[in-house]
Amino acid sequence: MIRINVINGNTHTAMTANIDAQARAAARPDTVIITTQPDAGPLTIESYYDEYLAIPGILAQIIQRQHDVDAFILACWGDPGIEAAREVTTKPVVGIAEASLYVANSLGAKFGVVSTLKRTQHMVEKTIEKVGLSSRCALALCTDLPVAATEEDRELTLRVLEAGSREVIAAGAEVIVLGCAGMSGLDGALAERLGVPVIDSVAAAVVWAEALVQLGQATSKAMTYRQPELKPIAGYPDFMQPHHLR
Amino acid sequence: MIRINVINGNTHTAMTANIDAQARAAARPDTVIITTQPDAGPLTIESYYDEYLAIPGILAQIIQRQHDVDAFILACWGDPGIEAAREVTTKPVVGIAEASLYVANSLGAKFGVVSTLKRTQHMVEKTIEKVGLSSRCALALCTDLPVAATEEDRELTLRVLEAGSREVIAAGAEVIVLGCAGMSGLDGALAERLGVPVIDSVAAAVVWAEALVQLGQATSKAMTYRQPELKPIAGYPDFMQPHHLR
Amino acid sequence: MIRINVINGNTHTAMTANIDAQARAAARPDTVIITTQPDAGPLTIESYYDEYLAIPGILAQIIQRQHDVDAFILACWGDPGIEAAREVTTKPVVGIAEASLYVANSLGAKFGVVSTLKRTQHMVEKTIEKVGLSSRCALALCTDLPVAATEEDRELTLRVLEAGSREVIAAGAEVIVLGCAGMSGLDGALAERLGVPVIDSVAAAVVWAEALVQLGQATSKAMTYRQPELKPIAGYPDFMQPHHLR
Amino acid sequence: MIRINVINGNTHTAMTANIDAQARAAARPDTVIITTQPDAGPLTIESYYDEYLAIPGILAQIIQRQHDVDAFILACWGDPGIEAAREVTTKPVVGIAEASLYVANSLGAKFGVVSTLKRTQHMVEKTIEKVGLSSRCALALCTDLPVAATEEDRELTLRVLEAGSREVIAAGAEVIVLGCAGMSGLDGALAERLGVPVIDSVAAAVVWAEALVQLGQATSKAMTYRQPELKPIAGYPDFMQPHHLR
Amino acid sequence: MIRINVINGNTHTAMTANIDAQARAAARPDTVIITTQPDAGPLTIESYYDEYLAIPGILAQIIQRQHDVDAFILACWGDPGIEAAREVTTKPVVGIAEASLYVANSLGAKFGVVSTLKRTQHMVEKTIEKVGLSSRCALALCTDLPVAATEEDRELTLRVLEAGSREVIAAGAEVIVLGCAGMSGLDGALAERLGVPVIDSVAAAVVWAEALVQLGQATSKAMTYRQPELKPIAGYPDFMQPHHLR
Amino acid sequence: MIRINVINGNTHTAMTANIDAQARAAARPDTVIITTQPDAGPLTIESYYDEYLAIPGILAQIIQRQHDVDAFILACWGDPGIEAAREVTTKPVVGIAEASLYVANSLGAKFGVVSTLKRTQHMVEKTIEKVGLSSRCALALCTDLPVAATEEDRELTLRVLEAGSREVIAAGAEVIVLGCAGMSGLDGALAERLGVPVIDSVAAAVVWAEALVQLGQATSKAMTYRQPELKPIAGYPDFMQPHHLR
Repeated sequence: MIRINVINGNTHTAMTANIDAQARAAARPDTVIITTQPDAGPLTIESYYDEYLAIPGILAQIIQRQHDVDAFILACWGDPGIEAAREVTTKPVVGIAEASLYVANSLGAKFGVVSTLKRTQHMVEKTIEKVGLSSRCALALCTDLPVAATEEDRELTLRVLEAGSREVIAAGAEVIVLGCAGMSGLDGALAERLGVPVIDSVAAAVVWAEALVQLGQATSKAMTYRQPELKPIAGYPDFMQPHHLR
Repeated sequence: MIRINVINGNTHTAMTANIDAQARAAARPDTVIITTQPDAGPLTIESYYDEYLAIPGILAQIIQRQHDVDAFILACWGDPGIEAAREVTTKPVVGIAEASLYVANSLGAKFGVVSTLKRTQHMVEKTIEKVGLSSRCALALCTDLPVAATEEDRELTLRVLEAGSREVIAAGAEVIVLGCAGMSGLDGALAERLGVPVIDSVAAAVVWAEALVQLGQATSKAMTYRQPELKPIAGYPDFMQPHHLR
Repeated sequence: MIRINVINGNTHTAMTANIDAQARAAARPDTVIITTQPDAGPLTIESYYDEYLAIPGILAQIIQRQHDVDAFILACWGDPGIEAAREVTTKPVVGIAEASLYVANSLGAKFGVVSTLKRTQHMVEKTIEKVGLSSRCALALCTDLPVAATEEDRELTLRVLEAGSREVIAAGAEVIVLGCAGMSGLDGALAERLGVPVIDSVAAAVVWAEALVQLGQATSKAMTYRQPELKPIAGYPDFMQPHHLR
Repeated sequence: MIRINVINGNTHTAMTANIDAQARAAARPDTVIITTQPDAGPLTIESYYDEYLAIPGILAQIIQRQHDVDAFILACWGDPGIEAAREVTTKPVVGIAEASLYVANSLGAKFGVVSTLKRTQHMVEKTIEKVGLSSRCALALCTDLPVAATEEDRELTLRVLEAGSREVIAAGAEVIVLGCAGMSGLDGALAERLGVPVIDSVAAAVVWAEALVQLGQATSKAMTYRQPELKPIAGYPDFMQPHHLR
Repeated sequence: MIRINVINGNTHTAMTANIDAQARAAARPDTVIITTQPDAGPLTIESYYDEYLAIPGILAQIIQRQHDVDAFILACWGDPGIEAAREVTTKPVVGIAEASLYVANSLGAKFGVVSTLKRTQHMVEKTIEKVGLSSRCALALCTDLPVAATEEDRELTLRVLEAGSREVIAAGAEVIVLGCAGMSGLDGALAERLGVPVIDSVAAAVVWAEALVQLGQATSKAMTYRQPELKPIAGYPDFMQPHHLR
Repeated sequence: MIRINVINGNTHTAMTANIDAQARAAARPDTVIITTQPDAGPLTIESYYDEYLAIPGILAQIIQRQHDVDAFILACWGDPGIEAAREVTTKPVVGIAEASLYVANSLGAKFGVVSTLKRTQHMVEKTIEKVGLSSRCALALCTDLPVAATEEDRELTLRVLEAGSREVIAAGAEVIVLGCAGMSGLDGALAERLGVPVIDSVAAAVVWAEALVQLGQATSKAMTYRQPELKPIAGYPDFMQPHHLR
């Protein structure tokens, strides 16, 4: 039995519920999925400001649950704060962006990403670069859909994703990655329309987290991801102080 | 129940047996591991000549078993012929190099690879480039161990890998990838000596193949990995002719 | 008269005082330097955890002072949260890493960086990449000095920086960049010992901020750095809500 | 007198004849051109499957003729198996892709390539990367012409190449490279229509092979291209066993 | 008081006058701007031939004035001969291309450049690469305006720049850089039409040169930019002989 | 019969004589080698200053002889002014750096370069980048030999090159490129000592120039290398004015 804490990066409760449903659907029968969202942070993440204000709350989730689960999933396509998440726990931490790109890279020679607001183009490209697979990306296309719309208007979202995906395929992509947790669950319908594999990033992260736990591997504490250095951090609760993390 | 054909890239029977044992140890209890080796090809793969002569035999394995299993693993760290393997079947094809690099990339900020004969330096670097993660590799180090020795003298292999890994760690690696299927099974002992995660590439491929099958995804047939074009291929058996592959 | 808010990224009061002194020394006689530090955040920044917990406090500084000054300086060599900082204000935001690299790039064909704890190697390299000048960097070397030591033991710091700089020069650097705000003020003594230009990053940022103000330019609001989208951000004070930022 | 074995990569006899004619037309009067094709392998090379099944037969050609000629040319734009070819002989081995790109790089600031089936886009880009000149390529464009058509319908081929070349020129190419041995001989007519240099890859390889022989240079046996290691290779004839290659 | 020699790279006297006016407008009140042009060289720089014939005259300007000023500006967007300029003097030498790219990089996540004749596309791209910021450039677009036209027909130039800039913005640029000294002074009008920051390269260089002088830094003489080696240089005047440069 | 103008980039008469001897030795029996040196320019090229002052004289050589020969060779490893050289003539222009790198790239998986003064490290790396083959270079090593010494003390040069080459080979090079025209003729003795191919850059350029002439190709006039634009160039002789170049 594997226990995974899936953390929605934002504070949109309906999106948390959808992520939970998709994660359960993708998981093995005996995997326990615990989906949560931060206490503090933006309703959706659509700018660097949103992202940076979301991260402390995401890290708090991990710290509070690190002795109770086997792995963590950051369920926001941007893998916000993943480097710090890997510092505070030895349990594997999987980002949905990272996992979705590995899957796509195993299924096609070039992949593409469809995402949300146009202003996040730079964020999306940085995310692919953070994973290290930019050279395999034919095109990352922002459709200008607000994140909340992906959850609230599924039919519109599907139409917009289909149009965007066709552009991405024309640019050379052979696999489509859904670049937002809010799009989770639309992969099947979209794949049917497009005729190419469509990757649900939440599902990809679930199977990847299960795989890492099965392997019995933990995050390397050799250098970058060592436990945070001991020091006071003003304005943060006790459980987030470095001396409590050891 | 997932059925996986693990294909040793060479014709070294003892190595096939070891790969089989390690693959079974890594797999889920109900996964069926079928480990095979090509009928034709070199005893070990230590040059481009070896690799190119091994590939037709590897592809024959896949073609012959494509209706009987759910996924294929190329158990030679070089993922020989993986592009063609993805053309001849729709089932996921996982290379052990590829899978081991994904695992390493999820566990540390930079990884390193230890491999065999020094003359294969260029092949090892090309393999990492083929996966797309060269920018995450601190150092790929060839130890000058012959491939056969990894199987035949485990104690020597362990000592050589330890020395090589220390160089790789000094160069910035936080995770060590075992860059040869023959090294499979040495990860635990080596990790104990080094104090950093060591990735068994065969085990990594098993959990990755299981994950892809669980996701229900197939290789994209949109462009690069379409079925081979129809045409005669002189000197090859009937079952390898393109018209038999459809 | 130009007014600049220099924001120390951490909450180390003595370091804030030193940064203030160095910024004043570098500024034009009629420039007003206002040096502050966040209300919340780590004593020093030496991990991704430290950095991510520092950023909300840094952004709060900018938001609170955006109508009172002409430019902002992020006085932590990592330019923490600079993308979000550029979203919340139209005033130029200068990172000390960014500014120091421009200066170095104008004075030599290749530069090098000396920085603090070894574990931050990855963070330092990412920072250079974020600026875009990685191809001009001969070597970024972490000396394993804690950040606090740079402030508290100047003589030790100077000796360690000299040794590190000599390695960096041997690797091809023609200019040395001091990769930590805490090292500010040591440039003169170090340059004398080394015989090559040494860049004080705080000073570099001051002249660069003055230059941008003199040019009359503001941050582009065309795409990436638009004002944050309107939405509630749970757990953050009113003045940090997006509707107050417009 | 220089003797060159030009090896058509496929088993299309008419294409072998055309390659032979073009190679003779490009060669010095006293150069002896011996054009051959593999005994086994696909009629044309249009997928990775075709390419990998062609390589053993290509290598057999080289091994059988290595004491009789001064240089080898791989007359398939993909330079299939060129690394292994360089292992089995000390005589220079020239790929037509490689040679054509050197010529193009000497005649214009940016070049472009026109090639065959769209599915080979990835193969064509990999080939340019294998040579090392990707940064000089404005665009590699696959026209969707089958390889056989280049030989069988010259007028259609010319029209398609003209249209494709114009796209490539619009993308910044100043020289056009014909990316298929089957297109050999169409360079003159195409150059006339386009007004820019068009490189016949077979001709380029002939003059490059002659040049290397004239220089008196042999392939380096220092590391990557050493003779294959001694070992049995199951299922291959005696003359291809490593102990016969020395 | 800072004294700067602004050197127009060409011998177009009206352009020198315009550069002088714009440089003065951008400078601090007490900065002394001395704008000059070479005695020998092309009327405008629109080819590599023009550029290489312009450089000796540009270097002569610097050598003749190196004891009289605090910094030099190369006022041609290509920063012609800047490496040699840095060898012959210890005073900071600023290229207008370099300075404009630093400014753009501080104001947006991606910048774009609009320039002159289409044939200079390769020169423009090389210039951005020389500075080191190619990865931040969304598009460099040559409008096919002759350099002289930028000076002689301001209204036409503005219209052409507006059209070109819109293409560049559509490609992802958030800041526009005017890629020719002749365009200096058009930044305000263009920014008004486009609604994004437009960088006047001459103005950017002036504030950057002032900043470097204020910092008190000099060019590194550690390696690449050491004084030229002692030797006779046939056909050049005495003041340009290396023994006179020390 | 092919006529080639080999242009020594500097004004060192003994070096011109040596280049002439080596070029003749490498050429076909019926090729006419005409070796010249500029009327104006530095005795040797060891800095950017030297290089930029050499280029006008080199271009004058080409212009004066463009109707009399079939190809030009720039016999200075830095290919100084090669872009402009390609503008002023349609005849192929070959740089010795470029040609030597093509040869090396055809003979080994990675090459290395040994060159002269340490201060030219940046120039040597830029040259390899200009050709486009940086990714194939294991190491470019400057030995600190003055250029004149390569000509005047052959035994010392050989010893220094041997030591440098061994470092380069240890870094992964399989072929050594002699990175200075003054080293021409030492390839044989050095190859004997090292046991790997050593490329004489002058010889490489001769066979490459002959090959391009044999192909019947001319420089593309499509964009970058068009004839220089019409305009007066102050201070240069009549025959160098653009209107005389057409």
